[in-house]
Amino acid sequence: QFYQVAHNFLPSDGVATYVNTGNWSTKAIAEARRYGGVQVAASSEDAQFSYIPSEAGWDVAEDSVYLHYTSNNTIFGTQYRTEPTVSMPLVCDASSDFLSRPLDLDRYGLIYAGAQKNIGPAGATVVLVRDDFLQTRRADLPTMMDYGTHAAKLFNTPPVFAVYMVEKVLRWLDDLGGIPAIQVVNQQKADLLYGRIDRTAFYSGTARADSRSLMNVTFRLPSAELDAQFIAEAKANHLLNLKGYRTVGGIRASIYNACPMEAVEALVSFMDDFEAANG
Amino acid sequence: QFYQVAHNFLPSDGVATYVNTGNWSTKAIAEARRYGGVQVAASSEDAQFSYIPSEAGWDVAEDSVYLHYTSNNTIFGTQYRTEPTVSMPLVCDASSDFLSRPLDLDRYGLIYAGAQKNIGPAGATVVLVRDDFLQTRRADLPTMMDYGTHAAKLFNTPPVFAVYMVEKVLRWLDDLGGIPAIQVVNQQKADLLYGRIDRTAFYSGTARADSRSLMNVTFRLPSAELDAQFIAEAKANHLLNLKGYRTVGGIRASIYNACPMEAVEALVSFMDDFEAANG
Repeated sequence: QFYQVAHNFLPSDGVATYVNTGNWSTKAIAEARRYGGVQVAASSEDAQFSYIPSEAGWDVAEDSVYLHYTSNNTIFGTQYRTEPTVSMPLVCDASSDFLSRPLDLDRYGLIYAGAQKNIGPAGATVVLVRDDFLQTRRADLPTMMDYGTHAAKLFNTPPVFAVYMVEKVLRWLDDLGGIPAIQVVNQQKADLLYGRIDRTAFYSGTARADSRSLMNVTFRLPSAELDAQFIAEAKANHLLNLKGYRTVGGIRASIYNACPMEAVEALVSFMDDFEAANG
Repeated sequence: QFYQVAHNFLPSDGVATYVNTGNWSTKAIAEARRYGGVQVAASSEDAQFSYIPSEAGWDVAEDSVYLHYTSNNTIFGTQYRTEPTVSMPLVCDASSDFLSRPLDLDRYGLIYAGAQKNIGPAGATVVLVRDDFLQTRRADLPTMMDYGTHAAKLFNTPPVFAVYMVEKVLRWLDDLGGIPAIQVVNQQKADLLYGRIDRTAFYSGTARADSRSLMNVTFRLPSAELDAQFIAEAKANHLLNLKGYRTVGGIRASIYNACPMEAVEALVSFMDDFEAANG
């Protein structure tokens, strides 16, 4: 989607503003440059993407056709606390925190989100696009890549199983009380886990405190050896997929909507035991 | 895929040859024209796409970077009996008959096939691309649309469920004796059904005899009213999805790899009963 957005909405003589907060932002910027002007308002690359640059310091091109941001960064465990307040329409890659908290939809031209975190199985992507923003797309797009094609009708054979599962997930979320209800649970899960990390010096969070993600909690132990031992022993205790992304190492606990509080409690309990034995 | 092929392989100053045998060919031609020159070697549009134009009459641009054909046309019930023998690499949209019969892979630069007919559930597409053909693609493609990206590594999160099911289908096909074995069954199913259609004048096949598809068998009854009655009564007899494509009407029996001989036998038996009652 990130290249498709630029292909549709960034004219060759126009400019779009991007905020660079990680791998996906970096890729989105590189693809957008093929189509038109790109201004990078801010980047946290100087500190291994460990924080979300404060909006007060952004250098936004005022004539931007949109401002693109990545609301949550799975690899680095960072997340925007608040939505940007710029004057142009927002375009958001919400792949890893969509449906985890309410969004102020009036600010957005387009939101895209791969299903595989909070929405359903891999193989579908949700796109929300505002009618008046859609009208600003360029002409002569390849039919399949034109958001107008898909807004108008079902053009291609859809990934039926993925869509079926998305419907199940949405009903589950609705029965739970919807996004406001899951937001409360997500905050509780994150508070519990970050609280444990901060309680002693044995564990240290890798994201700056004001930029911590409620979806992906990244932290380290005192050494890479202890990181590896932690991951191995956690696995033996049925706590899986805790290894940090290969380029950054450390520990990453992904606590998406589908992750219950009990799983976070089990992880925290294991962290207590592991520190008692190795701290 | 049909636009992606042209985007990758058709230079703006080059030419590709297309054979137009139906809806998908027509779409492929329209998308290819965005990128470079397109020569239409032959078209059966003059007769509602009811036949495959004989290769002897094709007007092929000899400097074509590829020749594109659609091996089977689901809507019109036509299929190439033999593979084209032109000098340039073939590009084939094999979406609706892939894995139904052997292909002479040496002739092809690229084959693409949506999974949802013979391969697995909707949501995945199989692409076979020859190494030396891949090297002829243009530079500066959007990363996601560049076949080289996907040939080099797993770039995006794949549609896991669809891929899992494809693996199950391939094992099933392998256990059955592979493509040569299923080809025999497919021929038997089609022979039985076309044999029934031709046995009396009540039913009439819509595709020209030399172009009949082994996957999609299209036919009509003496009137549109009888078509509708046939479809309704068939449904009451648990014979489903027999309605022809909305733009062409009539009856369409899709007898892909997964359709057993017993289903075709049940349909033929129903056709006998229906004719006895209404013929």
